[in-house]
Amino acid sequence: MSGATPPSIFHPAAGAAWRARWFHIIFNHDDAPGRLFDVVLIVAILSSVMVSVLDSVASLHSMLAPLFYVLEWVFTVTFTLELILRIAVVNRPWRYLRSFFGVVDLLAVLPSYLTLFFIGSQYLVVIRALRILRIFRILKMTRYVGEANMLWTALLRSRRKILIFLSTILTLVLIFGALMYLIEGPQNGFSSIPRSMYWAIVTMTTVGFGDITPHTVVGQMLTSIIMLVGYSIIAIPTGIFAAELATSMRATQMVTCHACGLGEHALDAHYCRGCGTSLDPAIER
Amino acid sequence: MSGATPPSIFHPAAGAAWRARWFHIIFNHDDAPGRLFDVVLIVAILSSVMVSVLDSVASLHSMLAPLFYVLEWVFTVTFTLELILRIAVVNRPWRYLRSFFGVVDLLAVLPSYLTLFFIGSQYLVVIRALRILRIFRILKMTRYVGEANMLWTALLRSRRKILIFLSTILTLVLIFGALMYLIEGPQNGFSSIPRSMYWAIVTMTTVGFGDITPHTVVGQMLTSIIMLVGYSIIAIPTGIFAAELATSMRATQMVTCHACGLGEHALDAHYCRGCGTSLDPAIER
Amino acid sequence: MSGATPPSIFHPAAGAAWRARWFHIIFNHDDAPGRLFDVVLIVAILSSVMVSVLDSVASLHSMLAPLFYVLEWVFTVTFTLELILRIAVVNRPWRYLRSFFGVVDLLAVLPSYLTLFFIGSQYLVVIRALRILRIFRILKMTRYVGEANMLWTALLRSRRKILIFLSTILTLVLIFGALMYLIEGPQNGFSSIPRSMYWAIVTMTTVGFGDITPHTVVGQMLTSIIMLVGYSIIAIPTGIFAAELATSMRATQMVTCHACGLGEHALDAHYCRGCGTSLDPAIER
Amino acid sequence: MSGATPPSIFHPAAGAAWRARWFHIIFNHDDAPGRLFDVVLIVAILSSVMVSVLDSVASLHSMLAPLFYVLEWVFTVTFTLELILRIAVVNRPWRYLRSFFGVVDLLAVLPSYLTLFFIGSQYLVVIRALRILRIFRILKMTRYVGEANMLWTALLRSRRKILIFLSTILTLVLIFGALMYLIEGPQNGFSSIPRSMYWAIVTMTTVGFGDITPHTVVGQMLTSIIMLVGYSIIAIPTGIFAAELATSMRATQMVTCHACGLGEHALDAHYCRGCGTSLDPAIER
Repeated sequence: MSGATPPSIFHPAAGAAWRARWFHIIFNHDDAPGRLFDVVLIVAILSSVMVSVLDSVASLHSMLAPLFYVLEWVFTVTFTLELILRIAVVNRPWRYLRSFFGVVDLLAVLPSYLTLFFIGSQYLVVIRALRILRIFRILKMTRYVGEANMLWTALLRSRRKILIFLSTILTLVLIFGALMYLIEGPQNGFSSIPRSMYWAIVTMTTVGFGDITPHTVVGQMLTSIIMLVGYSIIAIPTGIFAAELATSMRATQMVTCHACGLGEHALDAHYCRGCGTSLDPAIER
Repeated sequence: MSGATPPSIFHPAAGAAWRARWFHIIFNHDDAPGRLFDVVLIVAILSSVMVSVLDSVASLHSMLAPLFYVLEWVFTVTFTLELILRIAVVNRPWRYLRSFFGVVDLLAVLPSYLTLFFIGSQYLVVIRALRILRIFRILKMTRYVGEANMLWTALLRSRRKILIFLSTILTLVLIFGALMYLIEGPQNGFSSIPRSMYWAIVTMTTVGFGDITPHTVVGQMLTSIIMLVGYSIIAIPTGIFAAELATSMRATQMVTCHACGLGEHALDAHYCRGCGTSLDPAIER
Repeated sequence: MSGATPPSIFHPAAGAAWRARWFHIIFNHDDAPGRLFDVVLIVAILSSVMVSVLDSVASLHSMLAPLFYVLEWVFTVTFTLELILRIAVVNRPWRYLRSFFGVVDLLAVLPSYLTLFFIGSQYLVVIRALRILRIFRILKMTRYVGEANMLWTALLRSRRKILIFLSTILTLVLIFGALMYLIEGPQNGFSSIPRSMYWAIVTMTTVGFGDITPHTVVGQMLTSIIMLVGYSIIAIPTGIFAAELATSMRATQMVTCHACGLGEHALDAHYCRGCGTSLDPAIER
Repeated sequence: MSGATPPSIFHPAAGAAWRARWFHIIFNHDDAPGRLFDVVLIVAILSSVMVSVLDSVASLHSMLAPLFYVLEWVFTVTFTLELILRIAVVNRPWRYLRSFFGVVDLLAVLPSYLTLFFIGSQYLVVIRALRILRIFRILKMTRYVGEANMLWTALLRSRRKILIFLSTILTLVLIFGALMYLIEGPQNGFSSIPRSMYWAIVTMTTVGFGDITPHTVVGQMLTSIIMLVGYSIIAIPTGIFAAELATSMRATQMVTCHACGLGEHALDAHYCRGCGTSLDPAIER
């Protein structure tokens, strides 16, 4: 552990070469060592998450607690070494530590050390589940990038419409929740407005746990209206996203003729469909 | 309170100036005082709703009842003053009071005063939740207006299709409800046709509380059909709305004729469809 | 009652005039008497359905049973007279009686007469709910016809795709139902394969009553897969219908230029966007 | 049984003719004998599945067990003969046996024979349900092929987008499951992280069985967020599939160039985008 940071202290040039090489291995994803590092990291993250998940099962914990304990410390030490390596090779360690992934990397190792001082903090190890987001970062560099970008662009462009939709839903949830609290009241499980609002969200999203249900006739009539409203507005985010995605997909497939200005040519078009001019230079864009 | 209305009585000119200024502050949203008024109003509405919501939680009510009581009266007096101000500055007070937002503003203050005379009317304060709709009115004036309009236009244009869809749903609910009442009967929870219809809506909207479930084999077979029908027709409002929205979005990307002002030309149009003028310079935009 | 049929027997000409007039009133929907007949019929159908629905509520039945009994016979006699009138005025009574609406009209009056001979058949009156479909027939003639037709065309054109989708769903239901029966078994509520298949439909359609739930770990893992599959394939009918509806909507809004063959002009286009030729004769189609 | 294989051993030429004829009957679907074989096979598969399904119902089993036993052996022998016939007529029997349908055909007959040696293996007969997939194979050859292909192409093309979507869902399920395990804990039914993840899938897919529900206030708040997230992302696979299907459908309505055979020209194309030839006569179709 202590051998990982010195190079940058007494031997700057060698340290720089060492740092540059590891920086390349950690942050590049397109040559053999970089890809090997990615695979090892993904396997380690998935294994550590798997251990935390299995350790929470009472029957497995009673049988394999010592094994899980050892594995947890192996992963903690591995991730600590990885964290120190990342801090050592980046140019601005503080900026990295305050970035989203820096915080996640720190939170992934901290809980294990806290268990040495505080009883009960071992449950915090599940925060390590957040590290799984790093897998998405690695995938972002690969061939899924185009597809994910298109989905992301469609989401970003429908952002405002979805915000309007969510505020409408929350207003309806507040109004319906308050009304159901008045109609059904605490004796039927609608013990407070926040609880009625929880029920209204359960109902409007068509989840319908059934832990709270209307018992009065008026309550069941209002519930019928709430469900039909919820059912009808499923259409809204779907419609927004489908329309945006269709536009995104069409936009990436189209070329415009430079001679007559006719747009929406397929990507494999060599000639304009309106005037017959060659489109070939336009394809080189 | 009594100082807010006199100006319009003894000093018309000064009153007019005073009224015009406040009318501008209350109903305009694009200069500093107007925006400040909007922000204060939104904060007050959200806080008053929050107080009503928290007051309904039994544990918080037993602890903080006096605080909630004081806050409720603070909001009641504030909203009363605001209501008087609105009545004072608008040109046709009666028309305002009979408008949707006038009724909501009145209903937001009335219940608190009623509690002075009638026991139990304090629950009506939750009607104040409707005031949250005023927030949408303010937002309507801001940059969300274009997006909200597009959603609204798509909804309006799919109005008739959605009405046909809702009548079909309600007819199916009536027929399936009556059949399930015949098949399952009161001994399995289907105690009346209205209750069976409530169950049919719960099932067709895929909410599925589970408070009433079929117990006979024939009932479970019919339920399977009802669920598959409900599942398949989720497609209908979504399809209607997505298709309308896609049309709306395409319309905003279109070219307008500079000669006759006719809009919504396709991007590849060379001539205006209304007057036959060449659109080609318009394409260069 | 007996006076309604004779005309067609001894006085053909007068009978013919009488029949023609009533045929016009009953089957036409665009002049004053026809519309009056439609309104009276819709009100009578909705009222008779309402009476049957309310009569099924135990508390209302115990209070208002005699009123409901009288009303039911009033509707029965009215609908019987209407049925006789329809048979009298149509040219092929047998063909009408074997048509869908003929059968429904007969079933709407038969159960009341059966109660005179058989105890318990009064429940069959709910079959009258099917008469509500006649309302759709009347609406079909009015301004909703264009919208309903478009929805109907889109449904018809997606018929085969939806059939393939339903067979896939049913195959998955069979396979998942059989597997869950093997895994969970009767001790966890999966008492037979048909019941497991009912549960699989409840789960895949995301209804989720909760009357039967998996208790074993393997069962919950398979359930997770079933739910994700069900969730993903909600997309399929929605996508099919949205795509068909978008095509239908685009098709109805488009005019083709007779001079250059350029299609997809908006309905309000007077000139071709490709060559500037007048489109006006094309609009007269 | 033993008479089915010899031909290929001592009389090659006659065997070849015999094999070719049966190969044609079994694997062709467009002449009378082939279609008869298909119909008999579909009826046999559906009947055998129906027998297994009905046999699992306790009340029917106690009444009709001997009949079901006989029928099961009839189907087992029939399917064994069919399997031997298939092995005999195909050119590469091993390749067939290792193919998906070969394995399914073998699994369909094996469990019945195993019951002769092992008690309890009769439940494996439900594996026969997989044979129902062969029906799809037959349908693939018929007029549904075009429609099914379009659905399949749209699914294949949205494959990567749906994979990204599923990984996002599973990551959210892991994170939400771990958080709910920490918040609610074993005393409220969230007894382990895998069980919490099962609950998170039940909730995000809007199934909502209600076998496990949040009881703490913080848990209900997080559940509200999980449900709104789940509700919003229903939009994603639907949008992906609808957009892909709309593209597929548009592609089939396009004009093909008669000179170079390049397809998928827009309806308003005047020149082939591949070779520049005029498409105008093609538009007159």
